Amino acid sequence: MTHNTFALKGTICFSTAPDTIQFHEDSWLVCENGKCAGIFSELPEKYSRIPCRDTNHCMIIPGLTDLHLHAPQYTYRGTGMDLELLEWLNTYTFPEESKYRDLTYAQPAYSIFVNDLKKSATTRASIFATVHVEATELLMDLLEDTGLKTFVGKVNMDRNGSVQLQEADAKASASDTRRWIRNIQGRYKNTKPILTPRFTPSCTDELMRELSCIQQEYHLPVQSHLSENPGEIAWVQELYPNTHFYGEAYDQFGLFGGDGCPTIMAHCVYSSDEEIALIKKRGVYIAHCPQSNTNIASGIAPVRRYLNEGLHIGLGSDIAGGSSLSILRAMSDAVQVSKLRWRLTDSTLRPLSLEEVFYMATLGGGSFFGKVGSFEEGYEFDAVILDDQNLPHPQKLSSRDRLERLIYLADDRNITGKYVAGQKLF
Amino acid sequence: MTHNTFALKGTICFSTAPDTIQFHEDSWLVCENGKCAGIFSELPEKYSRIPCRDTNHCMIIPGLTDLHLHAPQYTYRGTGMDLELLEWLNTYTFPEESKYRDLTYAQPAYSIFVNDLKKSATTRASIFATVHVEATELLMDLLEDTGLKTFVGKVNMDRNGSVQLQEADAKASASDTRRWIRNIQGRYKNTKPILTPRFTPSCTDELMRELSCIQQEYHLPVQSHLSENPGEIAWVQELYPNTHFYGEAYDQFGLFGGDGCPTIMAHCVYSSDEEIALIKKRGVYIAHCPQSNTNIASGIAPVRRYLNEGLHIGLGSDIAGGSSLSILRAMSDAVQVSKLRWRLTDSTLRPLSLEEVFYMATLGGGSFFGKVGSFEEGYEFDAVILDDQNLPHPQKLSSRDRLERLIYLADDRNITGKYVAGQKLF
Repeated sequence: MTHNTFALKGTICFSTAPDTIQFHEDSWLVCENGKCAGIFSELPEKYSRIPCRDTNHCMIIPGLTDLHLHAPQYTYRGTGMDLELLEWLNTYTFPEESKYRDLTYAQPAYSIFVNDLKKSATTRASIFATVHVEATELLMDLLEDTGLKTFVGKVNMDRNGSVQLQEADAKASASDTRRWIRNIQGRYKNTKPILTPRFTPSCTDELMRELSCIQQEYHLPVQSHLSENPGEIAWVQELYPNTHFYGEAYDQFGLFGGDGCPTIMAHCVYSSDEEIALIKKRGVYIAHCPQSNTNIASGIAPVRRYLNEGLHIGLGSDIAGGSSLSILRAMSDAVQVSKLRWRLTDSTLRPLSLEEVFYMATLGGGSFFGKVGSFEEGYEFDAVILDDQNLPHPQKLSSRDRLERLIYLADDRNITGKYVAGQKLF
Repeated sequence: MTHNTFALKGTICFSTAPDTIQFHEDSWLVCENGKCAGIFSELPEKYSRIPCRDTNHCMIIPGLTDLHLHAPQYTYRGTGMDLELLEWLNTYTFPEESKYRDLTYAQPAYSIFVNDLKKSATTRASIFATVHVEATELLMDLLEDTGLKTFVGKVNMDRNGSVQLQEADAKASASDTRRWIRNIQGRYKNTKPILTPRFTPSCTDELMRELSCIQQEYHLPVQSHLSENPGEIAWVQELYPNTHFYGEAYDQFGLFGGDGCPTIMAHCVYSSDEEIALIKKRGVYIAHCPQSNTNIASGIAPVRRYLNEGLHIGLGSDIAGGSSLSILRAMSDAVQVSKLRWRLTDSTLRPLSLEEVFYMATLGGGSFFGKVGSFEEGYEFDAVILDDQNLPHPQKLSSRDRLERLIYLADDRNITGKYVAGQKLF
């Protein structure tokens, strides 16, 4: 057996369906060659000589997936919380992102972000960088070293940004994108490129066509934003008066899921019936970002409906629309906003349960990365150890209560161990 | 000068009005005999010999006030997040609170709560205990030792609770309340009693009349719940068909503010125009508890309106409807839910600003305790030192950005010093 064969002992929890979490108290979770090999109350004889880590009754959960965040915005998380999306982009985001042209700014800024992501419960993430090739490669270098498995996108934008930030034109944007893809070919084991048109208002038709060609040539996945804010949606409708809904603005260029084009669309707060139908048909992943949708006053996505329709859906921190990098926090935020949506706008969609948000944070988003987000046999061994000893209680709690309490109350001090595809990070 | 005369150096911030925070960078804040004595860029000659603490560029803010929380519910914070108010009370709250009859349960449970409250940024709090006299005194003993200044209420409830929890009848409840008040007379310097009818559905008319007599006899302040949840409000209307609004159910017994009866009412999510008018007339304090109103799906209070009307309003954690004890978190929660309210239900009430929630957490709630919540001369010296060094940033932030970031991101590690009425807690 190879070096990444070992066992962890603790209270093991993972989703087996959107409404079910399985708990195995004080059990062994075996990793064999980087994959989950089973859960046992007693360690079988054939594993008697593998290295073991007894977590002393900690919870062990699958690594969490962050389907949507902007690494360069980590610097201003928790500030500038007074504007809506379009003004917020112009006032805070674009000026900040333009600084990443300068690697002496990008280096400390990205180091802070990467260091915090490593300490978090996130093992997989799909990340926006900026338009800058060199800074994007720097970010990828830093992420590669952590052992986290990520998709990273050099952003494309050739219109409606600030002069300081946006690219000269579609040709320049496409050429930089090709240069970036060539530069990094074969460089990484953990870190992969993802095509990243910022959002429809940022990309000319010509650029979208270029990206479509690049997508087909390199078979890259795609990430962008969709139906986040009423003002944004109205603007897209103005830009493409012939489309029936926002998603068509991507789909007309072949950048909206389907075979060979795995796609993540962040937000989907206001997706119409037709848009939802196309999301389903194309297998597009929705990144639900409850804290961001709250902070920039976008609204609350109808997640219950998306789950009912069987769409692919995971959670995103959406730094810095979201101020917290924690996907544990994203879980409690998702429950909370679903309650407000139920109370204030639509009592037919009942609030999300703990089970459902746990599913979204693990299997729901993880499946974008392959067999990720579960401890069933054959899944990649992404595991996080959660220690709740600093949250004392006068009497014994059930495993479900312990998990719920950690989701509402944990910070990085509670995250005491982390493995990605069988590799121990700490 | 006495032993509680000293100076702190740091970036000093405090509200001067609901929409204004004053910042004094790298300045001295002087405490003289437990009161604020001024802010100086250079320490005046007359203070040259007082003890000084240089916080090394930390932020120094007034101590925060938690206007509403339930100490016995701290044990189950962050669990049971799947029910609305009335079911939630019956399923989780009443069974848990009934355990406090047993002091061997209450002792470790309250110790955990008090220890965490001491470490928090809260310097003043108005707290519900349970119906049990002995456990309430135990809680008061523990709180007294921390140096925090609190109001604590033995809860009254003689109907609609569980048999295990509720009091035998109005006479027994009143008699226990009188016994409690007599027992603690003269016992504490920091800890005061507050009359605490749980909420209208928990108290018979006879009990309310008894409490009114006790209030007049001992001149105690009052705390309770008001207009939190649609089901609760409908129930109160059934119980008192002749009242025009929920607040009248308290007012008819003289337990709703006015001269000599300072009163805190938690929530006010659904207060009618008439109720708001009476709240204003009687000078009742509103405890806005955004996280609780979210977690138990109550709704979102129209705080902007209350500020516009000049009502007294502060923030409450409402443990365990709220899962976090942090009033810093309550501030960001208040901003966040106000944005969702603006977006989803009423665009005439614009979202709350950082300045406004900071005001509510300091002066707004603090004034219930006297001259508390400001660093203007003559105010009691409640101060909290916030260290943001563990939140690195690649370039200098403005003081306002630093404060906002701490409000969104701080945990107890960022709270490195605390003073209450001039007494140093740490």
